[in-house]
Amino acid sequence: MKRALTRIVVVGGGFGGLSAVRALKHAPVQITLIDKRNFHLFQPLLYQVATGGLSPADIAAPLRSILKKQNNVEVVLGDVTDLDPDTHEVILGDGERIPYDTLILATGATHHYFGQDQWEPFAPGLKTLEDAQEMRRRILWAFEQAERAEDPQERDAWLTFVVIGGGPTGVELSGAIAELAHHTLKRDFRRIDPTQTTVYLLENAERVLPPYPPDLSAKAQKSLEKLGVIVWTQTRAANMEPGSVECAGAHEDTLRAQTVFWAAGARASSLCSVLQERLHAPLDRNQRVMVELDWSLPGHPEVFVIGDLAHYAHQTGAPLPGVAQVAMQSGKYVARRIRDQLNQKSTKSFRYLNLGDMAVIGRNAAVANLHVMRLGGFLAWLAWLFIHLMYLVGYESKLIVLIQWAWNYFSRNRRARLILGEKPPLETIPAPEVEKQRQNV
Amino acid sequence: MKRALTRIVVVGGGFGGLSAVRALKHAPVQITLIDKRNFHLFQPLLYQVATGGLSPADIAAPLRSILKKQNNVEVVLGDVTDLDPDTHEVILGDGERIPYDTLILATGATHHYFGQDQWEPFAPGLKTLEDAQEMRRRILWAFEQAERAEDPQERDAWLTFVVIGGGPTGVELSGAIAELAHHTLKRDFRRIDPTQTTVYLLENAERVLPPYPPDLSAKAQKSLEKLGVIVWTQTRAANMEPGSVECAGAHEDTLRAQTVFWAAGARASSLCSVLQERLHAPLDRNQRVMVELDWSLPGHPEVFVIGDLAHYAHQTGAPLPGVAQVAMQSGKYVARRIRDQLNQKSTKSFRYLNLGDMAVIGRNAAVANLHVMRLGGFLAWLAWLFIHLMYLVGYESKLIVLIQWAWNYFSRNRRARLILGEKPPLETIPAPEVEKQRQNV
Repeated sequence: MKRALTRIVVVGGGFGGLSAVRALKHAPVQITLIDKRNFHLFQPLLYQVATGGLSPADIAAPLRSILKKQNNVEVVLGDVTDLDPDTHEVILGDGERIPYDTLILATGATHHYFGQDQWEPFAPGLKTLEDAQEMRRRILWAFEQAERAEDPQERDAWLTFVVIGGGPTGVELSGAIAELAHHTLKRDFRRIDPTQTTVYLLENAERVLPPYPPDLSAKAQKSLEKLGVIVWTQTRAANMEPGSVECAGAHEDTLRAQTVFWAAGARASSLCSVLQERLHAPLDRNQRVMVELDWSLPGHPEVFVIGDLAHYAHQTGAPLPGVAQVAMQSGKYVARRIRDQLNQKSTKSFRYLNLGDMAVIGRNAAVANLHVMRLGGFLAWLAWLFIHLMYLVGYESKLIVLIQWAWNYFSRNRRARLILGEKPPLETIPAPEVEKQRQNV
Repeated sequence: MKRALTRIVVVGGGFGGLSAVRALKHAPVQITLIDKRNFHLFQPLLYQVATGGLSPADIAAPLRSILKKQNNVEVVLGDVTDLDPDTHEVILGDGERIPYDTLILATGATHHYFGQDQWEPFAPGLKTLEDAQEMRRRILWAFEQAERAEDPQERDAWLTFVVIGGGPTGVELSGAIAELAHHTLKRDFRRIDPTQTTVYLLENAERVLPPYPPDLSAKAQKSLEKLGVIVWTQTRAANMEPGSVECAGAHEDTLRAQTVFWAAGARASSLCSVLQERLHAPLDRNQRVMVELDWSLPGHPEVFVIGDLAHYAHQTGAPLPGVAQVAMQSGKYVARRIRDQLNQKSTKSFRYLNLGDMAVIGRNAAVANLHVMRLGGFLAWLAWLFIHLMYLVGYESKLIVLIQWAWNYFSRNRRARLILGEKPPLETIPAPEVEKQRQNV
């Protein structure tokens, strides 16, 4: 039985999957987009939700709503747990099978604790809206606990935050926590002085934002320090317990801190093992799938792997970074390839065009490496704002996010400072052990 | 030991407690405001969060932020679980004791299942932001399940919603669900037609909005029916199982519905039993505390109980309703009484001034009973909008809520349609039992 339309199954509605789907809008294909969540998430702004500046709905848009006018796509809320290479079907967690002629896998990345998964409860990472809400709870809860603490040592531990990993997420998160403490919460408490908060940023490499040019790393570190962040480079977490982080490297201290966040590593999402088992996909040490020149799986030209799930090293030798630009460009490329195949045209090979890297540090500082120019300070911050707003899905989100930012900017306010959830986060953070330890800093 | 300042402890930062605190702004007192949550919640708009129109942060504002400029108040995040009448102290869950000279209790109300607490998991109520988020999850999840259902009976059960209780919450909630289904989601799905959704509103009395004048109840019912809500008056839930609601009264049907919400009753929050045990407070059958003419506890002129926690029947014989107006006016009155006592002045007795009742039904219909006039339709909707915006705490919230409403109004969009939470709500809703049952309607 020959079907009239090619069936394209796209797994994952992030930057990669959504770009592929949208680029197939006018193609004579029948698309099924499968995602575990009912929304597209603008991940680069998660740290703003984690620090109370934005609400979840400001950085997420329902997939059905984004695609409601694209008639060749059907959205399925489901979790792909397996696939059958013989029948060309993906299999959902509830057993449903969805057949494909072409498969695009774009399920992204998850946290990577480098073999120390037991650290996760003490130092959660930031990949989902739930992660962001959990961070927000922990941050705000820490100040509440500090306010009520009788013992000065205990109070200090609640006022000490450690962010592990000095990439863009770690830089933005530590900057935002420092700003929250030193400005937004300044007058909110009666017993503690939130400006006494200490935020540590640990980075194993010799500078923060390692993939950026050295002068931008230096600018970023300076901006962070101006906000009150203590940046420890060439330092890593060697051990972790409730209430303390043992550092190794340039700083061999034990930090007494109740609130620790993980921004140090990413690895491919769990779908990679299915690909390895069913399609013999080769994986790198971060579990990413090594793909061909055209982003397809070796030996499976009908299966494409894009975005953070893929390891694409054909351009420079090093794998392309796990950023939104790579995901979007790979999604668009794969869509073009599918269109060309339908028209029996050849497709020229993929070339990643790096439009620039950016990180924002607090109220009006950012670093941007735009290739044509390198920006720092306020100008970079404006550029960052502009670019992020450009990509925010949906007209209304842009307007509302812009208003909230304008408000946050002028008032130094952060409106979404709600501790939600039935149980206090304390339950997941055991009380600090009272023991002798080295004095820090 | 005589203290310089009178110590006022206020428990609960809702409409009542916050009004009392603010009205004591210039009084020479030392106030401690204790709340379990770190925010003030604008409860009348919870149904908008439950139906994806607004985000939690749009209707909640951090208490510390609201009160940061009021220097005579300290905010404590804590749960009052007991009190000691001899030492005049309230006792928090963690054992901390906070002494008071005057105590104002304003912990509000919770759901009341009239002895059928086992219904709560199947038919959750709407009092907290978590409740609203859970409702939102269930509503959106139901449409997703309907889209994937193979069996037409199962699909219909996912597309059937039952709201129990025809007071303002039930009326607003059922109207909003109907509008979501019939307008917002209209084009979002490919297999189901969301306009086939059925929303039932059950009310035990002979008309919806029983405390309103009959002509407004009739208007409300007409507006609901125009939105596609099936209103069953003189009908109550007699039994409930996962997937079905057995009705009794005028309609003795069994409704096959996967999603059921409870808006039928409220009772005083759990603090009432502490008051009964420690201060011999008399309670009514909804556990509300029977208070004196000046809102104090009989025999305890230093303890005031205000808002939904109190039963105040001195004005009309019937207890004042559990609405924001009563809470705010009682809070302000008690604050005035405290100020007058400090100045050794007498206070004239309390008089509740009913400024009017309102309920909104969908996009541009509402009913308002403003005493000077009775409004229906679009005019009432505008009045409702205006009054709610007036009371929303914080300048920015008003602006953002106004923009979102304007947007929702013109686009029929509801932006915050996110299914959040790690686990699907399905886990709390067992699959419907497949069994023979009477055909409904």
